[in-house]
Amino acid sequence: MQTEHMARATIGRVPDDKITKEEFHAHELTLRTALLRAQEDLADRDFPVILCIDGPDLTGGDDVFERLHEWFDARFLRSDAYGAPTAHESGYPWLWRYWLNLPPVGTVWLVRRSWTASLIARRSFGELDDATLGPRIAHVQRLERQFAAEGALILKFWLHVDKDTLERRLDKARKKGKWTVQEEEWALAKHYDEGRDVARRVLRETDTEWAPWHVLRGDDRRARDLEVGTRIVQALRHRLDASHASPPPLELAPARPRAPQLAEVDLDARGPEEAGYDRLRHDYQARITTAHRKAVQKQAGVVFVFEGWDAAGKGGAIRRLVRAMDAQHYKIFPIAAPDAREKSRPWLWRFWRRLPTRGKVSVFDRSWYGRVLVERVERFASEADWQRAYAETEDFERQLVEHGYLLVKFFLHLSDAEQLRRFEARREVAYKRHKLTDEDWCNREKRGAYEAAVDEMLARTGSVAPWHVVAADDKHHARLEVLRLAAEELEAATSPRS
Amino acid sequence: MQTEHMARATIGRVPDDKITKEEFHAHELTLRTALLRAQEDLADRDFPVILCIDGPDLTGGDDVFERLHEWFDARFLRSDAYGAPTAHESGYPWLWRYWLNLPPVGTVWLVRRSWTASLIARRSFGELDDATLGPRIAHVQRLERQFAAEGALILKFWLHVDKDTLERRLDKARKKGKWTVQEEEWALAKHYDEGRDVARRVLRETDTEWAPWHVLRGDDRRARDLEVGTRIVQALRHRLDASHASPPPLELAPARPRAPQLAEVDLDARGPEEAGYDRLRHDYQARITTAHRKAVQKQAGVVFVFEGWDAAGKGGAIRRLVRAMDAQHYKIFPIAAPDAREKSRPWLWRFWRRLPTRGKVSVFDRSWYGRVLVERVERFASEADWQRAYAETEDFERQLVEHGYLLVKFFLHLSDAEQLRRFEARREVAYKRHKLTDEDWCNREKRGAYEAAVDEMLARTGSVAPWHVVAADDKHHARLEVLRLAAEELEAATSPRS
Repeated sequence: MQTEHMARATIGRVPDDKITKEEFHAHELTLRTALLRAQEDLADRDFPVILCIDGPDLTGGDDVFERLHEWFDARFLRSDAYGAPTAHESGYPWLWRYWLNLPPVGTVWLVRRSWTASLIARRSFGELDDATLGPRIAHVQRLERQFAAEGALILKFWLHVDKDTLERRLDKARKKGKWTVQEEEWALAKHYDEGRDVARRVLRETDTEWAPWHVLRGDDRRARDLEVGTRIVQALRHRLDASHASPPPLELAPARPRAPQLAEVDLDARGPEEAGYDRLRHDYQARITTAHRKAVQKQAGVVFVFEGWDAAGKGGAIRRLVRAMDAQHYKIFPIAAPDAREKSRPWLWRFWRRLPTRGKVSVFDRSWYGRVLVERVERFASEADWQRAYAETEDFERQLVEHGYLLVKFFLHLSDAEQLRRFEARREVAYKRHKLTDEDWCNREKRGAYEAAVDEMLARTGSVAPWHVVAADDKHHARLEVLRLAAEELEAATSPRS
Repeated sequence: MQTEHMARATIGRVPDDKITKEEFHAHELTLRTALLRAQEDLADRDFPVILCIDGPDLTGGDDVFERLHEWFDARFLRSDAYGAPTAHESGYPWLWRYWLNLPPVGTVWLVRRSWTASLIARRSFGELDDATLGPRIAHVQRLERQFAAEGALILKFWLHVDKDTLERRLDKARKKGKWTVQEEEWALAKHYDEGRDVARRVLRETDTEWAPWHVLRGDDRRARDLEVGTRIVQALRHRLDASHASPPPLELAPARPRAPQLAEVDLDARGPEEAGYDRLRHDYQARITTAHRKAVQKQAGVVFVFEGWDAAGKGGAIRRLVRAMDAQHYKIFPIAAPDAREKSRPWLWRFWRRLPTRGKVSVFDRSWYGRVLVERVERFASEADWQRAYAETEDFERQLVEHGYLLVKFFLHLSDAEQLRRFEARREVAYKRHKLTDEDWCNREKRGAYEAAVDEMLARTGSVAPWHVVAADDKHHARLEVLRLAAEELEAATSPRS
């Protein structure tokens, strides 16, 4: 399917004939009107349009990017042009800077030198080897699949010129001292054949029905711009008037055969009384402090995820964990239902935005797993949506771990009886009453559905970073377990060998 | 007034008496309930609460910060703990990282090691000299005044212990290998007297009625925490139940005697026809390219501001300006009315967020001047609000220029007759119709009021970065003027001497 598609894209109407200024203006008038009308219709809809304008500068990419700025209504347009990653951006997984800028639904996002262009450039200049290129292409495939599954209309344009034309343009530019020519352009011309081969491979492997490539010759400015505009109008109009065909559903992330299950947890586990508890707590905290300092020195990022039943004591465990770190190095994110701004972006967006930079710690008090827990059970997400979430979170976590983050995940497990006892106690204490809502009581009635959801989560999402399921009926036990496991994971990640 | 206030703060109930665990829990119960109730009431109100917890670690600052996390309802709490600025943060004016995190109205913002603490620490360790300290204290005064004028309730706590106590704590911590002790703490103990003198000066000069200091001894943990909590409840309760006393109005920023005025602009100015125009345009663009490359090499940030009448040609001028730069280095921000998220923060927040990092360019298509133009004339801002905006923008721009940004401001002036002609032409061209709203026609009727507002803006806001008022009745003239002036400013800023 992919090759067939690619062929179609490459064959498409190649603007070889020169177009006169008058012809251009006549076409432009119709085209701009149609573009604006489509953009206006888009404004009320629940999906964004992502337009990637890729290909080296001298092939006309910058010109097309600018022309589209002129044609679209700036009020519903976002645009980002990417160069080499800055030092700050390099502190995050490589796709982070794209996630960060994702536009809300109803808008057009113009992307100059997108994720694909970055891959091609870095491979062409030898900054990436083939062993790294493969996994990164897979990142791109999954990224675009996710965006498409969330509704995005994605169009990718690759502009190219032949070797002679490129060299002629470079010569001309050199003579004029023309500013647009970057160092990279010269290198690209020198390595035209290698660059073309890399581009061919990457384009072929990232050409999909839901994020197709439109490969166009960049020679004739007017013909090229009209062609790009026309294809955008056609695709957008088609999508506005027709229903959306999502990518075929992802296979469920496989269940691991020996994943932890709730039923196996010994909820009778008890921790020591006051004095013994305090001593152990201090010991673990001291170990965490030492290991965390090493993490800061190594500039390693750390992500803690806390999931668990209501009233399982997540907050208390988190407070005792962060006590062992300096406040300037960590940040706690309590995760509730997404707000309007978050709802208008792909669902993982709000977690990408909260990743820690080098040497920092993000603690998630509830997390992306809400998708396969509360959003599943309460039907806030469709079945297709929460089912693909297993693979999407595994993919997300793999990117974190590959980037070098330490990722530690806890699930605090609580018996039904103990939860009831704590709810009732909360009702009695004035300052704890706000922690208890009608919703909490309702959730109790769905214990069975939640247990099934938790077990499925434990089975399908632990292969990148394992789950630590902690018995939480006894607070001392739960807190000490969290501290002990955090200390061990931090020590392992910061030991000289790792 | 300031000294009297400071005296009051220092005298306040100093918790010298030890409090037993039982006493503490009894008080805590009442206090937490009152805090939560106040926080709940705050949620519906249109102001935020800013709580600064300052003072070195061993004085108890970290402990208080954490205790407040435990007491407040996390859902309506934001918190940030600051350390030394990161490399990324250092690329912006020093107050940027605080502006960036400003919370929306209705929430509590807990700030550990705030702007003041940062000043005190950096001066104590000799990273700032006295010549720099003075202006930075003034930044803090104006920052807090602005936040208060926008409605914020600001409480600042400074925790301290005497020299003997600090040394005893350090000894104890050293023996335990305790983790919280940073290098800085040791240095602070060694330079206790200097540190205290710096703190005294800074606290005295930043103690105001609208952002008072509460200076407390940090010795006894329980007494100290109760004291902090009590003061917060009192201040918050008082503010919730009473009306808000804003800071006394700022004096209007003075009008410059020789500021440009609209009436002086020669609107008959005409640029050359096609061929001459193209040649000049290319020349200017080449100069901009060269100078901008130097700016990138120097890692200098550049901010362009475009204001002007509707249909004056801002968009066209901006497109021709950015043509001379590589797309990855600039970003254009079209500024419309603030959205809900922006409205719930101090008005300058949305512009602070759009400042360029090192070596980048932000182009504002309309800007913070909307406050004294459209928001003034259309009465979206109260008179007191737009009047203080002159001084606030001058202060904002001074911080940009002091930080090393090049700031270039244009006002494109258009005659009433030419505007009418362009509006009518827009009505005729299908793809331009969206640029013309009923509002635009309405605004035309208030030409006189807008002219007065523009003249006052030109007079009161040009002392940090001068206004370039450009005659825009002729497009060629206006575009060339913008390019010429941009080239000259960029060249001056990147010449070897500057």
